Amino acid sequence: MSIRIGIMGYGNLGRGIECAVAQNPDMELKAVFTRRDPAEVKILTENVPVYPAGKAEEMAGEIDVLVLCGGSATDLPQQTPKYARLFNVVDSFDTHAKIPEHYAAVDAAAKEGGKVGMISVGWDPGMFSLNRLYANAILPEGSDYTFWGKGVSQGHSDAIRRIDGVKDARQYTIPVESALEAVRRGDNPQLTVRQKHTRECFVVAEEGADLARIEREIVTMPNYFDEYDTTVHFISEEELKRDHSGIPHGGFVIRSGCTGWNRENKHVIEYSLKLDSNPEFTASVLVAYARAAYRMNQEGQAGCRTVFDVAPAYLSAMSPEYMRSHLL
Amino acid sequence: MSIRIGIMGYGNLGRGIECAVAQNPDMELKAVFTRRDPAEVKILTENVPVYPAGKAEEMAGEIDVLVLCGGSATDLPQQTPKYARLFNVVDSFDTHAKIPEHYAAVDAAAKEGGKVGMISVGWDPGMFSLNRLYANAILPEGSDYTFWGKGVSQGHSDAIRRIDGVKDARQYTIPVESALEAVRRGDNPQLTVRQKHTRECFVVAEEGADLARIEREIVTMPNYFDEYDTTVHFISEEELKRDHSGIPHGGFVIRSGCTGWNRENKHVIEYSLKLDSNPEFTASVLVAYARAAYRMNQEGQAGCRTVFDVAPAYLSAMSPEYMRSHLL
Repeated sequence: MSIRIGIMGYGNLGRGIECAVAQNPDMELKAVFTRRDPAEVKILTENVPVYPAGKAEEMAGEIDVLVLCGGSATDLPQQTPKYARLFNVVDSFDTHAKIPEHYAAVDAAAKEGGKVGMISVGWDPGMFSLNRLYANAILPEGSDYTFWGKGVSQGHSDAIRRIDGVKDARQYTIPVESALEAVRRGDNPQLTVRQKHTRECFVVAEEGADLARIEREIVTMPNYFDEYDTTVHFISEEELKRDHSGIPHGGFVIRSGCTGWNRENKHVIEYSLKLDSNPEFTASVLVAYARAAYRMNQEGQAGCRTVFDVAPAYLSAMSPEYMRSHLL
Repeated sequence: MSIRIGIMGYGNLGRGIECAVAQNPDMELKAVFTRRDPAEVKILTENVPVYPAGKAEEMAGEIDVLVLCGGSATDLPQQTPKYARLFNVVDSFDTHAKIPEHYAAVDAAAKEGGKVGMISVGWDPGMFSLNRLYANAILPEGSDYTFWGKGVSQGHSDAIRRIDGVKDARQYTIPVESALEAVRRGDNPQLTVRQKHTRECFVVAEEGADLARIEREIVTMPNYFDEYDTTVHFISEEELKRDHSGIPHGGFVIRSGCTGWNRENKHVIEYSLKLDSNPEFTASVLVAYARAAYRMNQEGQAGCRTVFDVAPAYLSAMSPEYMRSHLL
């Protein structure tokens, strides 16, 4: 019998979940839930219902894992504990500083409901976190580096859009190649914010807007741009649409460390992602962890889990025997 | 109380285990076992005894994990099942084709003894296998690529040494950069053996030996060299010692796959290692999995396990709370 998946929230991430479920023959999409008017939400899969969010509670017996596709700022802190009482759930909660608090709330709710609540799944937090953990366990003496990009930062793009005279904008975060190379050589550099990443902005201005002022407001914006070397390009709406409508992202997690009686040997462990679609890749990770949540709950587990708690074999549709003879 | 480690076999890998244990404050080296005369085995750690291999059985109550540092051809198929009856054990069994058979033997023995037998740990099999599994679970539609090097292949170096007129030799396996680049671009190339790796040999010939014959015998050697582009350099014994006495290795595991309703988005996941010392890095992985074997057994688990069965959190000396707030 296939694993019955529900999707809560149908934006870019929700649609990514729908696509990922279609690539996994052991899963089936059971329902999509939305806070919008369901009649106005068109999904890709045929013969799958779209319901108002409030109907989810009634379907506890028909869905094995509910994948929560809301935002980390206000949606998930409410939704994940709420639904973890009724369903196995997976979320992509990514406010790193608030993970302990979120963990505690989801753990209590999931234990109450006898379900598994899998939080902070995706690539950072998620696959990047895993790689930090593995590399730290293997090389206890060393330094960690995480670089992001080249990719679109939604938060930075939104910040530019709020500037007076800006019609639309797209911001790319770009790792500094020379910093990456120094880290890969095992130089263990101490890098400032400015030395690690640059920011490149493509901006559509309103007609007659003061471009010099817009550029100045961008590059000096506190928290977002002031600590970075930032380049601003003014382009037309057509160019933005033609050249910058994708949502690519990616990045690098590198640990360099040493071994040997006198720490004489250096080692560099590197993990990197190059993603055409940030939400679709994130969704693909969530779906693999949905499989794990279902299986762990089937074994009787309940409570909050993160990627650190999941044995890799739970993620794959392959049998243990097949995995051992083909992937090990 | 620290985890008490025993080392069975004191070659390059055994010495690497000794160094890694010294880097992990929650562990202590309890004893080294050898088939040689213990009086002739000098280890690095003070006040740790070296015993004949046969004494291990008597020490079942004093050692939490016995790390088996023998070879995969003849040692481990005997040793791992034998000691898994008495100890939690970790080995680096790397004969990929025989893993299912080894798994079955270790599983039966470890269950009988109520111990955890962790097999095929290291980087390939080991960290590379893990990365193949994670990437396959996330991107079910895609292609896998593994490249090795640049690094020393002991088996190929030995094969050259067996040629008449060769005094000593060192062979490097080198990935073909253009093939790596095509894979990273997501081209999904079909690559022959020759297109993936080249082989470079540094050979010390005996005085008066026929160098042309030696070179011919190397490059045409079936299984080892005939399917590769191989370069042979004749050098002096001093040069070999000066420039080629390290045991570096490394490699790349790459999966490229697609997502999206029409498979329109490409993604590339890459994991790579650049290692100054192959045995010391392998040993560092074994020691992290020794911690996991001990903890899993403390929880009541028994039987054979591979890296696929180990939740990452078991590998780290950090507390779950610390991990979640610092690495997630």
